[in-house]
This record gives sequence, C-alpha cells and structure tokens, in this order.
Amino acid sequence: MIVVTKHTASEQEISNLVEELKSAYPVEIQKITGSGCTVLGFIGDTSSIDMTQIENDIRVERVMRVTEPFKKANRHFHPDNSIFEIGGRKIGGKDIAIIAGPCSVESEEQIVGIAESVKASGATFLRGGAYKPRSSPYAFQGLEEDGLELLKIAREKTGLPIVSEIMDVRTIEKFIDDVDIIQVGARNMQNFSLLKELGRTRKPVLLKRGLSSTIEEWIMAAEYIMAGGNEQVIFCERGIRTFESYTRNTLDLSAICAIKKLSHLPIIVDPSHATGLKFMVEPMCMAAIAAGADGLIIEVHNNPAKALCDGAQSITPEAFGKVVNKMRKYAAVEERQISEVN
Amino acid sequence: MIVVTKHTASEQEISNLVEELKSAYPVEIQKITGSGCTVLGFIGDTSSIDMTQIENDIRVERVMRVTEPFKKANRHFHPDNSIFEIGGRKIGGKDIAIIAGPCSVESEEQIVGIAESVKASGATFLRGGAYKPRSSPYAFQGLEEDGLELLKIAREKTGLPIVSEIMDVRTIEKFIDDVDIIQVGARNMQNFSLLKELGRTRKPVLLKRGLSSTIEEWIMAAEYIMAGGNEQVIFCERGIRTFESYTRNTLDLSAICAIKKLSHLPIIVDPSHATGLKFMVEPMCMAAIAAGADGLIIEVHNNPAKALCDGAQSITPEAFGKVVNKMRKYAAVEERQISEVN
Amino acid sequence: MIVVTKHTASEQEISNLVEELKSAYPVEIQKITGSGCTVLGFIGDTSSIDMTQIENDIRVERVMRVTEPFKKANRHFHPDNSIFEIGGRKIGGKDIAIIAGPCSVESEEQIVGIAESVKASGATFLRGGAYKPRSSPYAFQGLEEDGLELLKIAREKTGLPIVSEIMDVRTIEKFIDDVDIIQVGARNMQNFSLLKELGRTRKPVLLKRGLSSTIEEWIMAAEYIMAGGNEQVIFCERGIRTFESYTRNTLDLSAICAIKKLSHLPIIVDPSHATGLKFMVEPMCMAAIAAGADGLIIEVHNNPAKALCDGAQSITPEAFGKVVNKMRKYAAVEERQISEVN
Amino acid sequence: MIVVTKHTASEQEISNLVEELKSAYPVEIQKITGSGCTVLGFIGDTSSIDMTQIENDIRVERVMRVTEPFKKANRHFHPDNSIFEIGGRKIGGKDIAIIAGPCSVESEEQIVGIAESVKASGATFLRGGAYKPRSSPYAFQGLEEDGLELLKIAREKTGLPIVSEIMDVRTIEKFIDDVDIIQVGARNMQNFSLLKELGRTRKPVLLKRGLSSTIEEWIMAAEYIMAGGNEQVIFCERGIRTFESYTRNTLDLSAICAIKKLSHLPIIVDPSHATGLKFMVEPMCMAAIAAGADGLIIEVHNNPAKALCDGAQSITPEAFGKVVNKMRKYAAVEERQISEVN
Repeated sequence: MIVVTKHTASEQEISNLVEELKSAYPVEIQKITGSGCTVLGFIGDTSSIDMTQIENDIRVERVMRVTEPFKKANRHFHPDNSIFEIGGRKIGGKDIAIIAGPCSVESEEQIVGIAESVKASGATFLRGGAYKPRSSPYAFQGLEEDGLELLKIAREKTGLPIVSEIMDVRTIEKFIDDVDIIQVGARNMQNFSLLKELGRTRKPVLLKRGLSSTIEEWIMAAEYIMAGGNEQVIFCERGIRTFESYTRNTLDLSAICAIKKLSHLPIIVDPSHATGLKFMVEPMCMAAIAAGADGLIIEVHNNPAKALCDGAQSITPEAFGKVVNKMRKYAAVEERQISEVN
Repeated sequence: MIVVTKHTASEQEISNLVEELKSAYPVEIQKITGSGCTVLGFIGDTSSIDMTQIENDIRVERVMRVTEPFKKANRHFHPDNSIFEIGGRKIGGKDIAIIAGPCSVESEEQIVGIAESVKASGATFLRGGAYKPRSSPYAFQGLEEDGLELLKIAREKTGLPIVSEIMDVRTIEKFIDDVDIIQVGARNMQNFSLLKELGRTRKPVLLKRGLSSTIEEWIMAAEYIMAGGNEQVIFCERGIRTFESYTRNTLDLSAICAIKKLSHLPIIVDPSHATGLKFMVEPMCMAAIAAGADGLIIEVHNNPAKALCDGAQSITPEAFGKVVNKMRKYAAVEERQISEVN
Repeated sequence: MIVVTKHTASEQEISNLVEELKSAYPVEIQKITGSGCTVLGFIGDTSSIDMTQIENDIRVERVMRVTEPFKKANRHFHPDNSIFEIGGRKIGGKDIAIIAGPCSVESEEQIVGIAESVKASGATFLRGGAYKPRSSPYAFQGLEEDGLELLKIAREKTGLPIVSEIMDVRTIEKFIDDVDIIQVGARNMQNFSLLKELGRTRKPVLLKRGLSSTIEEWIMAAEYIMAGGNEQVIFCERGIRTFESYTRNTLDLSAICAIKKLSHLPIIVDPSHATGLKFMVEPMCMAAIAAGADGLIIEVHNNPAKALCDGAQSITPEAFGKVVNKMRKYAAVEERQISEVN
Repeated sequence: MIVVTKHTASEQEISNLVEELKSAYPVEIQKITGSGCTVLGFIGDTSSIDMTQIENDIRVERVMRVTEPFKKANRHFHPDNSIFEIGGRKIGGKDIAIIAGPCSVESEEQIVGIAESVKASGATFLRGGAYKPRSSPYAFQGLEEDGLELLKIAREKTGLPIVSEIMDVRTIEKFIDDVDIIQVGARNMQNFSLLKELGRTRKPVLLKRGLSSTIEEWIMAAEYIMAGGNEQVIFCERGIRTFESYTRNTLDLSAICAIKKLSHLPIIVDPSHATGLKFMVEPMCMAAIAAGADGLIIEVHNNPAKALCDGAQSITPEAFGKVVNKMRKYAAVEERQISEVN
C-alpha cells in the first residue's frame, strides 16, 4: 500500500503522520521525498487496512494498493488450478463442464424430459430454477420447494447432479440437502449475509458475476465464502451491464483470462443470460472454450416458445446436441475434453 | 404492448399467432399490416404478460411495452405526491427531510454526540449503520445488534427517528422493533426475498438505487414492497456505476425528475456515497434541492479522519451546520422548507 | 510516478531497471523495498513519460501516476478562476452566462425571431447549429455556410455574440471570421487534428465533454488547445453515456465540482442534450447553478414541434423566460448574477 | 415506425395528428385504439423520418422504430456476405485476414524487420501507425508523413498491403495514394466530415467501433461511407468503455454475431487495444475466430519494452508466430482458413 501526501503538508506533519500510521497498523513504513509530494510505502500485511480511512486524513492526497486484497482465492498463494469433484464429475483442470437445463422448472414431465435429453447430448450437470429472481412482483416466481423436489426426481432418473439458484438465506438448509451446486445469482453477488452462510457450508457454490461488478469485487465475493471455510467456489461470467442494448448484457470473455491470472478457482460462462438471444448461444459457447473457460451453463427448453421465462434465449435439445458436438472439436484443439458422465 | 412480426411470417402464420395470443392472454388484439411487417397491438391489462416469452416465438421479431409495468408506484393512478409522517416528521410534499449521521455506529459517545450535534444544526432524522455491507470479509462489519441498541439510546436522548440498513432478512423483526425507517442498500435493491418481507411490514422503507439499476427496475423494486401492502417507500438516489472513476459513482440528479414524473413516492439524495468525496457534498446537496429532491441523507462524523468506514466522504458537524443553513436558502427559492423537529 | 516491480524480480534485475530508467528519463529515482515487491518513486517532471512503455517491462508489475498529466489547464499552477471576456460579456467568475437558441438554424425569420426573443428574456449569447452531427447520413445536415450567414444577421440585429459547432477542420478560417465562440461537439472531443488547429487560433472554444470521456481525458483535450497557445477554453458538461436509457445521457453535475477543483477554466452545462427531455430542462438548469456552473446552454425553439432536429428537448421562448427568471433567484443565493447584456 | 399517443389526447386531437403526419411524410398510417392509448403504425419508407421531431409533439407519448435505419449496410437487402479483394488478399467469406504490425512506425529498420517477420509467420496485411491519436499533447504523435513513407518501403520489401490510421481529413489524398486500407480510429468513428470524404473515395475503410458506440451507431457510421458510394467497409471491434478497469476496454465478442446478423460487411477484431494486456491477446484471438470473426488485427513489436507507444499490449514476433499457428487449428474447426499470401 502506498500513501501519497498532499503537496501542502509540511515535513513535520508528514513525520507525525508516519508515527500515527505506525502505531495504528502492524506495518513498516518507508518514505520517498519528491519535489511535489512525499510517498509512504507500507511493508507488511495490509489486507485488513481500510484505504478510505487513511485517504480521509487531511495530510493525505491519495492511497493506492499495490497488492490484491484477496488471499484464499489468490493464485499467488495457490499456483495450481483448483479442481472440484462434484457428483462424480470434475470442474476445473482438463475437464469442461456442461451444465444444461431450463430457466425454470415447470413440471415433472418437462424437467425429466429435458434432463434425459441433455444428458444424451453430453450435459454433465442439470440446471433448473426453482426460485426465480424476477424484476416484476407480478411475474411467475418459480415453483419454489416443489421445483426442488422435481429436480431431485430428474437427478434420480438421469444421475445428473443438479444446480439451482438460492434466493433467500432462510432456505439454505434445504439447498444443502437437495442440490449439488448452489447458485448465487448476479443480483445477490454482494448479498453478504448469504455469502457468509454459504461459507459455513461445504457445498460447492456457483457464483455469478454481478451486473456491474468489477473483477476484484467478484473475487472478493468468493473470498467471503472461502473466508468461512468453504473453498469450492466456481465463478460464472454472465455478462455485465453496459450502454449497449442490442444484447441483454455484454458478455466479457476477457474476464476468463483475468480470473485465470488472478485466481486458481474455475470459471464457467453463461451465454444464454449474457446475450439474451438464442442465435448467439452457439458462437459464444465456442468463444468461451477458446478463451479458456472451464465450462458452460446453457438454457435448454423442449419448447422455448412456451417457456414460462426467458424463452428468447433458450435453445432446443436438438440445437444443444449440435452445440455440444461442436464444443468437443474446440475442446480438442485445447487438449481438453467435455467431462464424461459415468 | 406491441408485437412486431417477422417479415418472413406468412399471413396464415400471423393469423394463427393472433389466435394463440388471444387464447393465452386476457387481451384484445388489433392488427396493422405494413409492407415489411405486421404490428399487433394488445388492448387490456398487460402487466402480468412476460414479454420475453412472446419474443421467443419464431414468428415474432420484437415486443415493446407502451405502458409502464408498475401500478401501485405509478403516478398515473395516484396523481398527488405521497407524503409520509414518520416519528412526527414529514417526508414528501413541501418538507425537505434531512437525515444525518455517521456511516457506522461506533460507540455510545460517538453516536449520541453526533446525534445531538446534527439535531442542533437542523437534522430531522438520525442515520447510522449497525450492519455494514463491506466488499472485504476482512473489513469492519459493524457493531450489529449492539449498534441498533446504541441508535436507540441516541434516539431517546435527541428525539430523532432513526434510519439504519438491513442486510439479512432474518433480522427483520428486530428492525421493525428498533428503527423508524428501514434502509435497503444498493447491493440489496433486487434482493427480492427481502423486498417481499418488507412488503409484509408496515415500516417505511428507504430504497436505495442499485449500482446499475435503471429507473424502471428501481420503481419495480418499490412495486415489490408495495404489492405486499406496504405503501411507504422512499427512493434514494445514491449514484450509479459508470466508466468515470474520479467520483466513486456518478450521481444522477435527473433521476429525481424521472421519479417525480413516473411515481408519486418521495425521493431523497445521498451525495456522500454517490461522490465519495467530501468537497462535493455541499454543492451536490444544493443541486439536489434545486432539482426537486424531498430530502438528503448526509454522512456526518465528529472525527472523519478516525471514522471506521467511509471517512473520506464524511463531513464534520460544523460543516454540516453550514450546509443546512445554505439549504434553507435554496429551499426558500422553491417555497419549501427543511422540515421542523417538534 | 510510481513503479511497482514484480515479486519475481531479483535484486539484480531491479538494480538494472533503476539504471535503465535513470538513463531514459530526466528523473531521480528512490526505492522502497517491501516484502512482496519493490516500489520505485520518480522525482522530477514526469508529464512526458509514457506509462504504458514502462508497464510493459518484464520486471514491472504496475505503474501509477501521483500527479496530474496536465499543466496549462491545472488549477495547481493557476489558482484563480479564469475569466474570459467575449463580445462584451464575461464567462467565469461571478457572472453566469446564458447561451440560448435553436439546435439548428433553419431560416432568417426563425433565427432572428428566436435571437430577439431569448435576448429579451436575458440570454447573453446566441447558439445555433449550422453544421449538424447527425447519426444518419439521410437526416438533415444543417444549412452549413448559409447557416453561419444567418447567425451573423441575427447577431447584427441583437448584438448577441454567437456560438456554433465546427465539424470539419477545413472550415476553421470561416469559423474564426464568423463566430464568437467555436463549439467542439462531444463526438469531436478527441479529434486531435481539430484541437491542434484550434490551439493555433485565438478564438474562445466551447469544449463539450465526450460521450464516454473521463474528467482527465476531457481536461487533456483542453490541454491540447492550450498547448498550442489558445488559453480560452470553456468546458461544457452535456451528459455521459451510461446504461440508463430513460434520459438520452446521464447528466454528471458532479463534474462541475471536479473541474472546479482540478482546473481554473470555466464550465457550463447543457441540460437539453444531456437529458433529451424538455420537462427536465428547468430543474437541471437550477441544479447546475446550485452546483457551481458558470453558465448554461439551452435549446430554445419558437415552434419545438416543427423543429428540424432535437425538438423533443427544446423549450419555447416563453418557458425560457421563466427559466431565466428563476435562475436569477438561484444565482442570488450564490451571490452571483446572470451576466448583463450591455 | 410506431407512434403511441398520450392517454390524455382526445379523439379529435389524434385525428388531427394523423392528418398532419400524413401530409408531412410519404407514409400510410394505420390506427389501433386501446384503452389507455392509441397506436399509429407507419407504412412505407421511414428511414428519413426524424423520430425525435415527432416525439416532441404534445399529443405523442413515444415513438419506436420497428425497422433498422440503415440500408446499404443492411443484410436484409444483401443476404450474402460481402467479400473484398485487397492487394491480392480476401477479407470476408472463408478467409480469415491477419493484420499485424507495430502500434507506431518508428524507423525503417523496425518496420521492415517486423513486416518480414510477421509475413513469415503468416500475416496477410501490415499495420503501422504514422499519425497517432494520443490523449496527451506532450506524448509522441507519430512520424506522420515519414511514417507513411517507411510503410511503403516495408510493403515494397514484403508485398504486404498496408493499413494505417487517418487522423485528419486534409491528408486524405495522401492516404489514398499510400495505403491499401484506410483505418478510422475509435475516436473518429463519428467524425462525419471524415466519413463523408471517405465515402467519395474507392479505398477500403477499416472502421473501428467508437468507445461508447452502440451497434446501430456503428453501422450508421458505415452507412455514411456507403451512402457516398464506397461500399468497401470492414468493421473492427476493439472493445467498449465500461465500468471495468482491469482491462483497458471490454472486448464485446457478441458484437461479431450482431454485425453478422444485421449486416453483410466483414468484421475483424483487435484484441490488443481492447484488452491492453499482452497475456490476453492469444486467448482473445482464438475466441474471436470461434465467434465468427473475419480477421484479427494484432500489435506485434520486435522489442515491446522499447516500443514508443502501447508496448504493454504488443507481443513479440515469436509469440505472434505461435498465435497464428494456433489460429489455423481454430479456423479449421470452422472450415475456414487464414488467407494465403500469394
């Protein structure tokens, strides 16, 4: 951490500041005296120091971090890729996970039908929304508990582990019991109460990027979960909010490279929610693999035109089958593989 | 609602589509046939129709709403400004509410001292964070329950009603008992579980705008609370996330005009969090009043350099006193008044 | 300027780096050795150093500026506000300039009529577009040279100095001859060829902020003009592009405070283009004055419904008169005045 | 085009509006009368109608386009992909163009050396900046005319056609004479004077996307050039400005899919400027091909650490050679090929 003093601060004021900082924080401080300002360098662990507090000092011009504020998620302290084994499938490493299923669970027939179909095409996990975050209180909110029950039936029939989104910290025990990966949606990425509770579980968490979350904030959200002792966090890039309105969000595939450099945790991509447009799903799946993603989460619906939500971005099981086949070719270029269902 | 068909759709396909839509939704449909496409106009209540589902139909090019998707918050159905009376002070109408206090409650001495001081300068409500949303799990998280207790002591000594942020739906009973206005932070603006629970209470809610929330999404968040029966929602503009990094966020004062046009609910402004820079607090307070805001929420700390969070944007009680005096002059131009403490 | 080395760089590599930097740049270098990295502080004039070049060195982790890259526009070296006298009116200081007129010049009758009417209501400058930046090549592009001639007629009849936008560097001589303030539009804010040519003139320049320009880039654009010897630059905030689509752009009034802190140059506000909505013009004018703006530029059209461009944001001369009267009250609170026409 | 009337407009007012619109524009108008509002549908060519003018009418609530405002660039009227042959290489169709070279031309030795090296690795075009858009007037501005001369020497020695950026409309004759593809930089994407002049030439234009340009504005910029008669426009996605600051810009690969759907013109990708980080260049090249791009433009420098600009994002000729080899494998999956140099 670096503290730049105001050019109006006197030598005496700077000396006092150094003494105060030394007594407040467990760090060494070194000083560079320039023509316009003095720079103080902090040596030691600065992760718990609140920059804004120092910035507020009348003698201080600016404070800058030189090291990242996250530890457990940091590749620096964990150079190898994390690989998680969930329900017999791997996420991370050479394996590419394919999570597929409908936006919402609607009926037993629907979810079991889609599950069987996506499994046949190569999906390794089943996704399905039981609790739905909808911008309108008047829109369909999901089948809730019944939806989780239907997902369990689909898992029993197909063997596919299930991924579903949690909306309320009060349902956490149910999710621990029922699902294999707990999804945290974009709108809850900084629901810190929820993150803390997830840190107390030992369930893998799929952490979607917030609509306007920076890479650093996103990793810090993972750090919240890991700080509680749960190290199985999987990032999911799902597009960020920008001025462009042709797509629902702007898919940031460079985030894959950033996460891979900064963290050892796996990262997957959601092309369906990112673009909101079904004709973009296939090319964005291929681009995600080419960019180094560890998996995809894809909306598949047997009858997109009748889907109770987000039909515009769902593809049919047939289209999904073709996408998986093409992904295998791309994975081969990278000497990776779509992870096998045993 | 308007549905535009694909230019490739045949007459027969369009006829079928019209029949299907009529049987699916309780609306009348009228048709305009153009050279490149056909336009279907829906007549009736479309608020519960999911646009994306129709958009997904293979015969459909685009779907557009022509009326707003919110009802209870809509000025169209409630032309007069809503005015709420909370702890003997009014919010909305001619009165301008001044909510002041520290980012975090730190000690009895601190919160009581600041409360007395801001009351003397003209504040009408006391704010103070007990539960703090921090981007790092290693940063100070607030005094939590103890913080609420200290706020109650400050209220007892000064008579100022208190405003504090809720972070976890499980603490809602405590907030109902302890505070006068429950604040929903920007990061929880679309925490729909929390919004629904708040809808079941009869406590006024201060609803901060999400970091990347559109005006419409923000009003829909209020609609969630109102749909549950709680009509006392106060909007709070606190800056949106943009590419500009000189300020922490970009304060969107035009949002005041937008909310005033679209909704009957009051709106206040938080210049401290919006800019993150104390030298901007005063001018942005004045600008907010000039733009028509119904109040301000301002961070005040007796010793900003030692504040446990967000010191960089807190002003001193002395500075606050000057700001309030100046605000009185601006309010007078608009024939409004800083609401009186009885 | 501060250079942080990679934690993998050896002591010898860092020594070599220091020597290389010293020989490449006219600066002193001081060194802080920490546990994870070494920090090099540059002492001396770093304004011509290209940060990205150093950042590219294999031994370097990050480079950070601690001082601003602009000089002539910097308040640090010019603490007093710049005040320009143009056609007998002042911009900057206690005076608030009111620039009013139509988006496009359409006819002699139109421009003279509006000029007389806005003058009567208190406008101190006349604006009018002769060359129009339109997103479609099929839309009306302005009367071009004829438009400038009509503006001159309006100036002759009313005495109002004229402001008009330049689109093409090849018309610069004509603009020097014909107009009193040359406007650079948002889309040309980083048209560096144009900025350099304007630097060679001695005409005041109204520099609109680019759609996605940071405060620093905007000041650097002014620095381009000033570096050429033309010190009369007036900033114009006109909204930035964000995700919000209710308003055309998001008016950033905090930019007034930022410019006032960083620079000595005056800044005015364009509420018409920023919001694109006429009902927001009045409140945003008031907010701009309350925030410290040195003037306003307002679209006024005698018949907005028939305006050849941007009618949706133009107000009538009657509405403009009321706005000016109200602005006088706001200016009085700040002990400022709408500058008088002599 | 669809016009929605205000719910306050009377039947008579709407009838009058219809008559006025019919006499003002060469269109048929059909009417849908709903409970809350009336919708008017325009039938005919609406591309020259200015929406904002109608929106401004007191009886009108909103105006929406249902067809795109561009014609010559529209795939609707030109279903096949455009393929351009430039200097013996194809852009568009099955061929993938590889444009490589330094940010700035620095010397004959440098540009010839890089040209020979990138040609050997498979580049099909040489890029090099002679005129440089720099945010600071104090930074290196390029070798200008001398730079173009050095590029011509490099072309003579290698046979590679050259791509270079134009900054000033006054140099257009020189660019027509000297270069094979004229590049329009992001900052000039809406420099309409320049676009019009380029429309009068018959030189291929590489049109970079503006920093905050929507897909539609970008295509409209191409339409400006095409409206003048020059149909050889190549789009170049180079990242958009968002809140994320880890990368210089946010590379929007979904824009490839959007352009391919809306237009017949080719689109290439610039991963170097988009990310500003050399470790992202390789994965983003692969992702671009997987997403359907027709080419790449890549910064290559023989000594990135000494590059006079943008070294942080330049890769070495060796790294470039590996990238091209890997791209061949990706192209093969799509049954495409890196276009051959004859």
